[in-house]
Amino acid sequence: MPTVDFFYEFASTYSYIAAMRIAPLANGAGVTLRWRPFLLGPIFKAQGWDTSPFNLYPAKGRYMVRDCERQCADLGLSFRLPEPFPQNSLQAARVALAGLDEGWGEDFSRAVYRAEFAEGRNIGEPAVIADIVQALGHDASAALARAQSDDIKGRLRANTEDAQRLGIFGAPSFIAGGELFWGNDRLEQALAFSGRS
Amino acid sequence: MPTVDFFYEFASTYSYIAAMRIAPLANGAGVTLRWRPFLLGPIFKAQGWDTSPFNLYPAKGRYMVRDCERQCADLGLSFRLPEPFPQNSLQAARVALAGLDEGWGEDFSRAVYRAEFAEGRNIGEPAVIADIVQALGHDASAALARAQSDDIKGRLRANTEDAQRLGIFGAPSFIAGGELFWGNDRLEQALAFSGRS
Repeated sequence: MPTVDFFYEFASTYSYIAAMRIAPLANGAGVTLRWRPFLLGPIFKAQGWDTSPFNLYPAKGRYMVRDCERQCADLGLSFRLPEPFPQNSLQAARVALAGLDEGWGEDFSRAVYRAEFAEGRNIGEPAVIADIVQALGHDASAALARAQSDDIKGRLRANTEDAQRLGIFGAPSFIAGGELFWGNDRLEQALAFSGRS
Repeated sequence: MPTVDFFYEFASTYSYIAAMRIAPLANGAGVTLRWRPFLLGPIFKAQGWDTSPFNLYPAKGRYMVRDCERQCADLGLSFRLPEPFPQNSLQAARVALAGLDEGWGEDFSRAVYRAEFAEGRNIGEPAVIADIVQALGHDASAALARAQSDDIKGRLRANTEDAQRLGIFGAPSFIAGGELFWGNDRLEQALAFSGRS
């Protein structure tokens, strides 16, 4: 079965939309997904940016909000920009890696995105992350402790380094058939491409 | 009949793809198009950029080439990046405005894009622009002279100023139903949206 690597960043608006769409589409296309949370911060820093390009370029930022509202409306999803934007996504990404090991990482990822971009909660707050883990029926303090382990920290760094090595410069990104596809708009094409090679 | 403003820049790769697709799609959607060539240079300059973001951010530039190859392959279009990139598009934009007045501007615009991105010709050279006008059966020296008139120069400046005022930060862009849509990927959505309002 073809495999697609799904690189997503919890602070990224378009990663939210892709994360809410990807599972049934991959299933329908017969594609196995590898959910790979990563951090855009180090990649943006290497490009000379100290925040999101949506903050650096206000016209682009204003457009992004309206575009996400329209895209989400078409999909029946809510959308709001959280305060602050971008959010601190470090802990969410580490907990997601812990959850992916234990089979609840995909549900957790979708729940984080919903909390952040539908409900406007601050995912940089440990209490919000703990709430989300608990609502999924798992032990929040165990998950948060595991997220601080050297193993998980190292694996998040490895995902981010892999992303950079693969030429990833934004999120979401997909690696399919050895090629890079960038953006929620390329999700369907990436899934179709993975079967070709 | 609803109207969509099509803002395109002759140096822009994704404007090429949109320009080759837009006429039959608009026709099918019952939408009247206003073809509005403009210049991204002044808009990029206001953002602090002195060249294309695809040059400023090499990972993004490499991705763009491969993405355009894939998008064009799906549409049966050729794609190559011209030398230099981005091309000087000032004269092409002025001649397009002259041609739009006389009913051959759309064909000219497509022919310029084909020369630039399918054949790799340098559209910054007056001889290339003259060739294209002539191949369409029009008087090249008359068109090039008219392109240098104060009227045409002022109208290209006005298109560029309108674009900036409308929040446009890249190309292609569409104004439909009073809203901005950015990128070849949003062409269909813009056409559909224009009918709603």
